[in-house]
Amino acid sequence: MSPFTGSAHPTDAWEHLRVTREDGVVTVTLARPDTLNSLTFGAYADLRDLLAELSRERAVRALVLGGEGRGFCSGGDVEEIIGATLEMDTGQLLDFNRMTGQVVRALRECPFPVIAAVHGVAAGAGAVLALAADFRVADPSARFAFLFTRVGLSGGDMGAAYLLPRVVGLGHATRLLMLGETVRAPEAERIGLLSEVTEEGKAHEAAAALARRLAAGPALAYAQTKALLTAELDMPLAAAVEMDAATQALLMNSADYAEFHAAFTTKRTPKWQGK
Amino acid sequence: MSPFTGSAHPTDAWEHLRVTREDGVVTVTLARPDTLNSLTFGAYADLRDLLAELSRERAVRALVLGGEGRGFCSGGDVEEIIGATLEMDTGQLLDFNRMTGQVVRALRECPFPVIAAVHGVAAGAGAVLALAADFRVADPSARFAFLFTRVGLSGGDMGAAYLLPRVVGLGHATRLLMLGETVRAPEAERIGLLSEVTEEGKAHEAAAALARRLAAGPALAYAQTKALLTAELDMPLAAAVEMDAATQALLMNSADYAEFHAAFTTKRTPKWQGK
Amino acid sequence: MSPFTGSAHPTDAWEHLRVTREDGVVTVTLARPDTLNSLTFGAYADLRDLLAELSRERAVRALVLGGEGRGFCSGGDVEEIIGATLEMDTGQLLDFNRMTGQVVRALRECPFPVIAAVHGVAAGAGAVLALAADFRVADPSARFAFLFTRVGLSGGDMGAAYLLPRVVGLGHATRLLMLGETVRAPEAERIGLLSEVTEEGKAHEAAAALARRLAAGPALAYAQTKALLTAELDMPLAAAVEMDAATQALLMNSADYAEFHAAFTTKRTPKWQGK
Repeated sequence: MSPFTGSAHPTDAWEHLRVTREDGVVTVTLARPDTLNSLTFGAYADLRDLLAELSRERAVRALVLGGEGRGFCSGGDVEEIIGATLEMDTGQLLDFNRMTGQVVRALRECPFPVIAAVHGVAAGAGAVLALAADFRVADPSARFAFLFTRVGLSGGDMGAAYLLPRVVGLGHATRLLMLGETVRAPEAERIGLLSEVTEEGKAHEAAAALARRLAAGPALAYAQTKALLTAELDMPLAAAVEMDAATQALLMNSADYAEFHAAFTTKRTPKWQGK
Repeated sequence: MSPFTGSAHPTDAWEHLRVTREDGVVTVTLARPDTLNSLTFGAYADLRDLLAELSRERAVRALVLGGEGRGFCSGGDVEEIIGATLEMDTGQLLDFNRMTGQVVRALRECPFPVIAAVHGVAAGAGAVLALAADFRVADPSARFAFLFTRVGLSGGDMGAAYLLPRVVGLGHATRLLMLGETVRAPEAERIGLLSEVTEEGKAHEAAAALARRLAAGPALAYAQTKALLTAELDMPLAAAVEMDAATQALLMNSADYAEFHAAFTTKRTPKWQGK
Repeated sequence: MSPFTGSAHPTDAWEHLRVTREDGVVTVTLARPDTLNSLTFGAYADLRDLLAELSRERAVRALVLGGEGRGFCSGGDVEEIIGATLEMDTGQLLDFNRMTGQVVRALRECPFPVIAAVHGVAAGAGAVLALAADFRVADPSARFAFLFTRVGLSGGDMGAAYLLPRVVGLGHATRLLMLGETVRAPEAERIGLLSEVTEEGKAHEAAAALARRLAAGPALAYAQTKALLTAELDMPLAAAVEMDAATQALLMNSADYAEFHAAFTTKRTPKWQGK
């Protein structure tokens, strides 16, 4: 994605998410605590549109995604989503499922790291949102459940059958997506699903600290690292090596690379500009 | 695969395998205990043909693959297979090796979950049969050995060099396929090769229980989860997300999805029909 | 790669590496201990050229890559590499980064197993050299750091964004490449980055023992196992199964396969010839 803009203007207010900003860190909070932050049509659409808009802003350096209240996200709302989809025709069903997939693609393709701060339950689409983030920072009591088969749907929802085997391996991914069982933080950590387990109740704080640290770093280097990790899952080795070479040649012309060298030779800390 | 049939009729008797059925669960037993269930040409051909036939029956909901006697399977029979291949010409060698690969493809492509119940040794082709299953349920004393290089062959046999890195990562897979070393259940569990470790002597019982549980569940959802997990290993993210969207839109028209919603709203357990 | 040679002749002396040979095992030592074996333009070029030359010799059966002094390799030299690249034009930068990528491709594509013997630090390009090896044998005090972002560059350097997710999963790979944090041997072992952890100070000895064991084994079987592991990361299942079938049919005509059978039936140890 690219910061160039034409006639389209940014959204005035995000009605289905709480969005705050501070010093390059955007914090997105799923804020329907009465239903464990279940996702509605509006929330999916807002996530998709918000990520697209933020991707055009070079000032955004990291994003934290979390939930308010007792947990991270219980997934698609049983009444608003499941009930409503039972009334939809084929085209509407495709439209809905493509939108949820677009949120996952936006999470993978946005040019800044995304940190899921997970406490309590991350279930269904909530588990996939966390899975699509770059970092999953979780409380020891956090738990994940890819419970799609439990509602009669495919475990491959929103790219989960693509992403989960690449994160935890095909064996664990089959078990989790097929059975929809709950995976608690200790097992999630053991199989590679978590980036960091914090002390109880500290996931949001630790996610915010990681976001601030990333925001203070070499943003262009982080953006390209993310882009290459995402793209090279889908590339043969020879193409990946060539893509790395071109990217690195590009970044060797960046201000931050020169700044590293200048700081190193004068024994001071680099001042990253993200360009 | 599809249940539509033409002129071909089902096989009357499986001479090289023991096959039993009960309530949607097919149990396939390798039953040559005198040679640790070593595989013969007939056993490979029967596995290939059986899986193709079962894939046409919508009544089959899960399959358990196990071995009789002291272990799961010692792999290709040294006399019947290795001895015989030494006499084969190039075309015959290709025919044989394609057949064994077709068994692995059939295990990955059949529209029901396959559970390997592993006790004792799973060696050579036996280890690959277990690897190609969706679930590996094993005794604590079970052990795996991808021992192909020990007979002078490539560790990439029957798709093992494709599947194993995707299950346990490239580092472990290289070690196991290159050296042909024995991996015991605790290490197998640690690296992600096992779905479940049971109490000693309980692997078959636990595999049967898992099969009954899957057979009683939303079969179409399981079949699509398996199909997506298999297909999306070979797809880029954007295509995977689109395939998930189309699949989910399809399943949102299924009887089981409506049944979930009806059961949830009246606080009862869903009655899955698998359609 | 293929042993056929034309007019080109082998290099007389490797000026930027120490290269020794004994009974099919080549040992390559990074030998600039004053700078923790930091890599220079000459060292990259020598690694690329050496691997290409060795790949044409059927006598080479295994390669050990290690470092002299306090650690394995500290990566690209800050003065000779980073300083120099700041003066390069676009074409020169591409030339340099393509060369480093060619070293990784050569490590993955050479027809013999490569064992990284890691003690102390493996940082930056040093960590990627170890990652591209088939085996990583390490001291308990060894540590890895993919610290590219710390110098303002992309974590995807020399194929790291391709290889690392396939070795340790996307979650861990994102964390390691994005943050450039140090991973010590115990964590590296837990996430699948190490093949073997030795007693302290024994990594070189254990790597040499593994190399001798591989050199004494069925070299053609090992070469094909490596080639299939490398190629099948980039292939769909059906193609991989077909490639395995053709490879195995080929090897079933090899001397070593017949030797296994002869040895087995007369209860003696096989004498591997590697053909």
